Amino acid sequence: MKQIDEYLENNLERSLAELKRYVSQPSISAQGMGLRECAQLVRRMLEERGFETEIIATEGAPVVFGSRKGNKDRTLLIYNHYDVQPPEPLELWESPPFEPAIRGGKMFGRGVSDDKGHLTARLHAIDAILDLEGELPCNLKFIIEGEEETASLHLHEFISTNKRKLQAQACVWEFGGVDHRDVPMQYLGLRGICYVELSVESLGTDVHSGLGGSIFPNAAWRLTWALNSLKGPDERILIPGFYDKVKPPSPRDRDLMAKLPDLAEEYKSRYGVREFIKGLKGGNELKLEEVFSPTCTICGLTSGYQGPGSKTVQPARASAKVDFRLVPDQEPQDILDKLRRHLDGQGFSFVIITYLGGEAAARTDPEDEFIRIVVDTSTEVYDYPMELVPLVGGSGPIHPFVHDLGLPVATMGLSYPDTRAHAPNENIRLDLYLKHAKHMARVIQRFSN
Amino acid sequence: MKQIDEYLENNLERSLAELKRYVSQPSISAQGMGLRECAQLVRRMLEERGFETEIIATEGAPVVFGSRKGNKDRTLLIYNHYDVQPPEPLELWESPPFEPAIRGGKMFGRGVSDDKGHLTARLHAIDAILDLEGELPCNLKFIIEGEEETASLHLHEFISTNKRKLQAQACVWEFGGVDHRDVPMQYLGLRGICYVELSVESLGTDVHSGLGGSIFPNAAWRLTWALNSLKGPDERILIPGFYDKVKPPSPRDRDLMAKLPDLAEEYKSRYGVREFIKGLKGGNELKLEEVFSPTCTICGLTSGYQGPGSKTVQPARASAKVDFRLVPDQEPQDILDKLRRHLDGQGFSFVIITYLGGEAAARTDPEDEFIRIVVDTSTEVYDYPMELVPLVGGSGPIHPFVHDLGLPVATMGLSYPDTRAHAPNENIRLDLYLKHAKHMARVIQRFSN
Repeated sequence: MKQIDEYLENNLERSLAELKRYVSQPSISAQGMGLRECAQLVRRMLEERGFETEIIATEGAPVVFGSRKGNKDRTLLIYNHYDVQPPEPLELWESPPFEPAIRGGKMFGRGVSDDKGHLTARLHAIDAILDLEGELPCNLKFIIEGEEETASLHLHEFISTNKRKLQAQACVWEFGGVDHRDVPMQYLGLRGICYVELSVESLGTDVHSGLGGSIFPNAAWRLTWALNSLKGPDERILIPGFYDKVKPPSPRDRDLMAKLPDLAEEYKSRYGVREFIKGLKGGNELKLEEVFSPTCTICGLTSGYQGPGSKTVQPARASAKVDFRLVPDQEPQDILDKLRRHLDGQGFSFVIITYLGGEAAARTDPEDEFIRIVVDTSTEVYDYPMELVPLVGGSGPIHPFVHDLGLPVATMGLSYPDTRAHAPNENIRLDLYLKHAKHMARVIQRFSN
Repeated sequence: MKQIDEYLENNLERSLAELKRYVSQPSISAQGMGLRECAQLVRRMLEERGFETEIIATEGAPVVFGSRKGNKDRTLLIYNHYDVQPPEPLELWESPPFEPAIRGGKMFGRGVSDDKGHLTARLHAIDAILDLEGELPCNLKFIIEGEEETASLHLHEFISTNKRKLQAQACVWEFGGVDHRDVPMQYLGLRGICYVELSVESLGTDVHSGLGGSIFPNAAWRLTWALNSLKGPDERILIPGFYDKVKPPSPRDRDLMAKLPDLAEEYKSRYGVREFIKGLKGGNELKLEEVFSPTCTICGLTSGYQGPGSKTVQPARASAKVDFRLVPDQEPQDILDKLRRHLDGQGFSFVIITYLGGEAAARTDPEDEFIRIVVDTSTEVYDYPMELVPLVGGSGPIHPFVHDLGLPVATMGLSYPDTRAHAPNENIRLDLYLKHAKHMARVIQRFSN
């Protein structure tokens, strides 16, 4: 592996240049911006490595599929996404989000971590194997979608109808990384999600608040009251039956969680948290609550006048973006049904629910052979052994990979706690970029044996 | 008066051209845009009529003061404002807000009604008198401020310190107009207002909702709960002591209100109201509630992601614009104090209150001599006799005119129910513009006798 490592080190600049080109192409799925162009770019990146490629239309953004045969008839499926989060608020970026910039050993730009850097680091590992050995040791398949940041609306269907094409023995997930101590983490499962927009229209037009205030319904008030009915200041979600299917963590889960570090102080300093909610202070209680409890999060609110100073208007419309993070065995459709019934039952039948996507939670067995390969090879690259995390708080379309394709799914990647995914100044550490490429090359080699 | 009326009709185009120039100069006090330029423009407009003028600085936007002596030593003070509301949402305007356009007997543009058209129509009346008679029959003074749309933050102090300069025997208010039947209305009082921004900052930065949702405080949720504590779905305002100083309408008020038309159906069709709040159906109950009850209105909400599609972010900041309309004898400072105590008492001491302005309600005696002049002269211009309204729902800085300067204040103007003040497609009817000029000329003449 020494040769491979040297190759990866010596050609790092070339790979970073490719990442810069890739990040410079905006591809914002929430706004439908640049997706086709970016899919074409990704296709070319795969073709340059001799992959057979297809751009496959879905009802949403197209999926890029690539495959290349290797010496051994074992197939590793690699999942990535080419779409990114919206860059707003723009004024908080220190350099423009779509003009990637390297400063202090880091590259900054929207999508540099989530998820574009993951793809180029993996391609870097493949370049090393191909240039040094001429061919791949096993079959590789890439599935690179364009709607991950908008809840992968069409991926489940894509996977169901393309099971054969996607056949493999194991799957590498789109992301992974190290924690605040630089310890690589193996995330064995992801929470699910149910993302909705709640909107209220109470009048035909905005009205002067001096007229409407005493006698007309106010959309912003109605939305406030409807939201308040979902969750109170004690953080308990009030939708009847919401917690019915929640599986509590198993003893094995609790053991694994107990081994993980206490991040309370880390969170406080990194995110400016003055106090945790639910009276949490840290320790195992905080760790378990962080991932094994479902959530109801307001992601955005909009109504009426939002500029500087005062405008005396009664808004006709108001809306909120709300995401529910789901734990096993909650299902997005079931939560959606219960939300509708709850709002109707509380007198808020005027609230329109727009379903913006969802997926169920899924997990991989910590004893799986592929997980062992990923964990074992990590020790050659990282300073610390990989730690197993039974479930993480984020979501992703892991359910069809685990349940439809029947694959073990391993996470590995270049993320780190200050990577600022979804936030201004998203960035990657170049040392971790190189480590991910080294780790990836090893996983491909070991998987082929 | 026949000569005057003919003059006003024959020179209408010239006055409308002046209004177009005036509206074309944006002057958005909420955004601090174009105020100095607009004040200079107004000064020139007065100087062209031989007024002695001053632009007087305040801590906010400057006040334009103008005076011209007349034959008789009686002084009429005319109050107007040169600032306008923000034009947003821009996409709902049929023609650009600062490019005034005439269509179907109406002129459209931001501020065309509130309040720029009122000033130019009054200047039109003055032109007629000056051109036909050579001088004014009485002294006229104009006070034209630039912060009316942001609660006239510095006007009260300006009036207190310039009482001598503003000395007069009567005051014409900045606006007035007809109701849905084209009946001119005499608004004898205005509600007060207390306008605040409530803001919450719960984190140092926005965070991925998969991480923060279960354990970090969410600014949007905290704002939602704090707002919900102010008013529930029954519309009762929950701030302790909020209603303490509310004076119920007197028997005379009730008599005057009973004579006014029932606008329930009018409101439904004009504003797309499907149902009134508080179980109101119409009639005297609706009329009294509309103006004699104080309000708590959410004018705007903003937090987190508000673009299309989904973004899974937990917002660090959230804020709401809230206005309280006050009735006699509520005071804005008292309401502000009670709001702070209430939020603190409810566990919402983290909510920051920014006071964006306020004023108390004030009323003029319906039996005042100047009111009679305005009402009597209206019959020569309008098809119906003017009706007396003891109090209206809107607010304005009437308190210092009534209480510091000791003036009767009469409303007269070109507004009408579909004028869309503060909303997209603000407009005036040209027939009412001309009527207001005719009425104004008569008031000046009769006041001088």
